[in-house]
Amino acid sequence: MFKKIAIFGVGLIGGSFALALKKAGAVERIVGVGRHSATLERARELGIIDAAATSVADAVSGADLVLIAAPVAQTAAVLASIAPHLQAGTIVTDAGSTKSDVVLAARAALGSKIAQFVPGHPIAGREQNGPDAALADLYVGKKVVLAPLPENTERDVAKVAAAWQQCGALIHRLSAQQHDAIFAAVSHLPHVLAYALVDDIANKPHAADLFQYAASGFRDFTRIAGSSPEMWRDISLANQGALLNELDAYLVQLTRLRGLLAAGDGPAIEAIYSNAQQARHSWISAIEAAEQQNKEGGD
Amino acid sequence: MFKKIAIFGVGLIGGSFALALKKAGAVERIVGVGRHSATLERARELGIIDAAATSVADAVSGADLVLIAAPVAQTAAVLASIAPHLQAGTIVTDAGSTKSDVVLAARAALGSKIAQFVPGHPIAGREQNGPDAALADLYVGKKVVLAPLPENTERDVAKVAAAWQQCGALIHRLSAQQHDAIFAAVSHLPHVLAYALVDDIANKPHAADLFQYAASGFRDFTRIAGSSPEMWRDISLANQGALLNELDAYLVQLTRLRGLLAAGDGPAIEAIYSNAQQARHSWISAIEAAEQQNKEGGD
Repeated sequence: MFKKIAIFGVGLIGGSFALALKKAGAVERIVGVGRHSATLERARELGIIDAAATSVADAVSGADLVLIAAPVAQTAAVLASIAPHLQAGTIVTDAGSTKSDVVLAARAALGSKIAQFVPGHPIAGREQNGPDAALADLYVGKKVVLAPLPENTERDVAKVAAAWQQCGALIHRLSAQQHDAIFAAVSHLPHVLAYALVDDIANKPHAADLFQYAASGFRDFTRIAGSSPEMWRDISLANQGALLNELDAYLVQLTRLRGLLAAGDGPAIEAIYSNAQQARHSWISAIEAAEQQNKEGGD
Repeated sequence: MFKKIAIFGVGLIGGSFALALKKAGAVERIVGVGRHSATLERARELGIIDAAATSVADAVSGADLVLIAAPVAQTAAVLASIAPHLQAGTIVTDAGSTKSDVVLAARAALGSKIAQFVPGHPIAGREQNGPDAALADLYVGKKVVLAPLPENTERDVAKVAAAWQQCGALIHRLSAQQHDAIFAAVSHLPHVLAYALVDDIANKPHAADLFQYAASGFRDFTRIAGSSPEMWRDISLANQGALLNELDAYLVQLTRLRGLLAAGDGPAIEAIYSNAQQARHSWISAIEAAEQQNKEGGD
């Protein structure tokens, strides 16, 4: 049971965390911090937070747990604002989509208090944002990656894990570097590819004709290009190194496939398509089996 | 009203065409042709066709309309098999995803009878295939592109258009070249990109780790990589020229974006993402408005 949790950013991610913990009866009091008083007021109306903090000092004082769920570009500033008020016994965690840069910022901001920071990343989202999009069951069956630091105590890591588990999430552990390499491949690169395709088409002189004939395959392929440009600019830059690695590997792959297409090499093209189809099929089957298991386990 | 329609390939595309025309009361008799007698028998059981033709001559004889909805790789062979039996007054059309190559094959196969061939492409699909996947309303509100030849009479083109309109489809006209350039950009290229990404990930030594953390964005982005490898090998090769053009433009775009990422140029990256997001948003809004209009018009 948490006595007091402070949440920086009471939108989809922070708000859903709050609602889930309240639903689970796992927290006594939640205070919210944010740049917009209207958003905090809305979060209070929705029962996400019990009160808006009057200051960072007020928010952090006496908190068991602080969750930073503000836009990633603000993480360093939020950490710096917290640092002077951070008491022993308070654990800080975050929900950012990249981890190496957050760890760097946390070391710079928290200094000798770095052991109190347990980096995290819940793998959940919706197209909507803000407190009104928050859902008590957003994290049910979803993965939360924790990327503990060598300085963290197991007890603190376990406490952060327990909070997410109360939200229904499944805990995974990776190093910050592993995390960033993995998400560069399966999340950040696909976003770059989708944005690049839509921008490419939109800039052609006959863009209107092209969009007119785009169908459901295009719609699904480009869904992630509907995501927030600011957020994905920040993620792209925050994970620059790993993303460049993946992008370069993909450019090699695409250039190879271009060569096969130019050569009219049907069997080699089919081998690539077929390997992809089979890999995706196995992946979907594994997901569906896991979902089924979670459902049965939850009943 | 059609007296007799012959359909080569009684799966999703051909079967849905048959069911829709029967539902509309627009045809007296439909005969099916295919390589597998079990499939034809199943189509007969499902009421898709009235009979399986005993030969191509039998199928084509006395038909008002012949639809070629067999896998695209068979189109040339089907056209060649039809040619000797093709009577004046019979119109032939097809449902292939590429058009320039089909026109070339039709000219070679039909020779002086080329005026009887009206190339077509219904923009509709499902993940399932075969006669059991056929739906009477598959084409309702969907686009069908006709790519008439200079030799076609307006009356014949109008007849093919009327058949698709009876299925509920909206008729568009493009030249074969326009068609192939457009679909290279909005359909064929996205398939290549999705196959390439999944194959790239599947071939990495830590593929299992990567797939484990892939989430809903990846799932939608790669849905089209679940499509038939044989079919997409054939489409890629059939539309090789236009697809290479689009792939090259995309490689230029991606290389430029790579440069911006390496330079850490946040504003330029955000401009691309933002342009893509806005273009996609406008496109989705236009689709939804059109769907709404179709719905109201259909009530």
